[in-house]
Amino acid sequence: MLTILAGAASTRVAAERGRVVNSPRPRVEDTRLSINTATLGNPPLNASLDAIAAAGARNVGLWRETYNGMTAGEAARAVAAHGLHVSSLCRCVLSPDTQSMKDAWRAVDEAHELGAPALIVLAGGLWPNSRDLAGARARMTETLSELAIVAEAAGVRLALEPLHPMFTAGRSVVNTLGQALDVVEPFPPERAGVVLDTFNVWWDPELADQIRRAGRSSRIAALQVADWSRHHEHGPFLTRALPGDGIIELRSILAAVENAGYRGPIEIEIFNDQLWQQPPRQIARTAMHSLAATLH
Amino acid sequence: MLTILAGAASTRVAAERGRVVNSPRPRVEDTRLSINTATLGNPPLNASLDAIAAAGARNVGLWRETYNGMTAGEAARAVAAHGLHVSSLCRCVLSPDTQSMKDAWRAVDEAHELGAPALIVLAGGLWPNSRDLAGARARMTETLSELAIVAEAAGVRLALEPLHPMFTAGRSVVNTLGQALDVVEPFPPERAGVVLDTFNVWWDPELADQIRRAGRSSRIAALQVADWSRHHEHGPFLTRALPGDGIIELRSILAAVENAGYRGPIEIEIFNDQLWQQPPRQIARTAMHSLAATLH
Repeated sequence: MLTILAGAASTRVAAERGRVVNSPRPRVEDTRLSINTATLGNPPLNASLDAIAAAGARNVGLWRETYNGMTAGEAARAVAAHGLHVSSLCRCVLSPDTQSMKDAWRAVDEAHELGAPALIVLAGGLWPNSRDLAGARARMTETLSELAIVAEAAGVRLALEPLHPMFTAGRSVVNTLGQALDVVEPFPPERAGVVLDTFNVWWDPELADQIRRAGRSSRIAALQVADWSRHHEHGPFLTRALPGDGIIELRSILAAVENAGYRGPIEIEIFNDQLWQQPPRQIARTAMHSLAATLH
Repeated sequence: MLTILAGAASTRVAAERGRVVNSPRPRVEDTRLSINTATLGNPPLNASLDAIAAAGARNVGLWRETYNGMTAGEAARAVAAHGLHVSSLCRCVLSPDTQSMKDAWRAVDEAHELGAPALIVLAGGLWPNSRDLAGARARMTETLSELAIVAEAAGVRLALEPLHPMFTAGRSVVNTLGQALDVVEPFPPERAGVVLDTFNVWWDPELADQIRRAGRSSRIAALQVADWSRHHEHGPFLTRALPGDGIIELRSILAAVENAGYRGPIEIEIFNDQLWQQPPRQIARTAMHSLAATLH
């Protein structure tokens, strides 16, 4: 199955290569590639790190649930023992209730311990039983201000992630790159940036302009890559495909991000329940292959 | 089942009423309400019209498939015989292949015969086996220019509909109200406007600004109402809920449209396979009830 997936990806990448011959081509060192643990289905930390290191990646996008039962310091030592660096820590949610805020503060501490260059921050959706979208957006901004104080003290960079508009109600009231840039504008760039995830933003008619804007203001804190399956076969939350298996012009978007001055890690983050049925090492190999094929 | 749905809608509307007491309230004559035949699952024309007239609506949003096997003139006479007016004709797609263009021209003729104040136009998605989103957007604009010439000759107003960004790949490369307004800008307002469908645009952080812009330039050609189910239980294409059963602040959006100067028909258009299991007359009654409860 994975051989087929990888084969299909290569064929399409080759076809694409012929077509966009005049486009700027990103030149990316392999040392920048990263695999997000969600791509593997978030197995426990050591299984995740083993698979990612074995695939030849130098960086890991780490979900906090992978090190459940360990301290962040222990997790940091495990990452280092595998010769890896953390490219981003996933994640906390800007919900103003006490429990969520405490969890977000813990996430900031963990990002510090792990040396993560970005802590992924989700805006959260509407409140339960509420339709007040404007209110949820205003409160989210206030909550971010409070978290930025904690992040300042810890020297951690927050990375606000706009999610695709199909997630507005349940997961994130921040839904475009432009909106995310508006939200982080009051903070210094080294304290609050944005995550650009191709799956979430590819459709946006303002994408090219907003990537340039993000570059000018040094706001791109993390870059995540996933393709969009034309068929939506997994429903709205699991329609992510391996790079090359979907319909996003990934190469153009990645070139635009590179042209905007971003030189940080490039993470592959796929949520795909078919992929998750494979062993972690096999998924990591396939992921690394498809990401590299898209970039080179 | 429908009694429960309608009851839940009324309760939520009452709760909402208390909360937005200072907001402008749309004052809408019942004569403006319309039921789109898709809400009934598009039964054949006479069954659709019977149900819609029996529910007390004065207008019908008509899908072309309902009058399959009849001429548009015959359909127009059936609409008139039921004491109804066409609020919009659904629809044609801006695909530059010959077959789609011929179909779009036929749709323009039919809109003329039916006296439809707006012919709903979809941009279409990516081409088969293509990832060229920018190219698809450029070609769509060219195709619209050609169709506008035909529409001019027929005295028909085209109404470009931005679809939710989850439909970019397969159905429409026009995905925000702002983008749709940009696309129709070169044409006279009486020749090309936009459709505002609450389900497609509710999430947009620029919505209020773009509604004002649409009002200033007299571009709102049609208004469709559907709610967004928090649970996405029907998958991406069937998550529409009856007004009041979802999480969209419909009253605020409708007030904004009213304040922008729109005085045309207000259509309820729901795609919901649970609803479609009911008889058309029952669906039409429920739809009319929930639309009126949202507006008054």
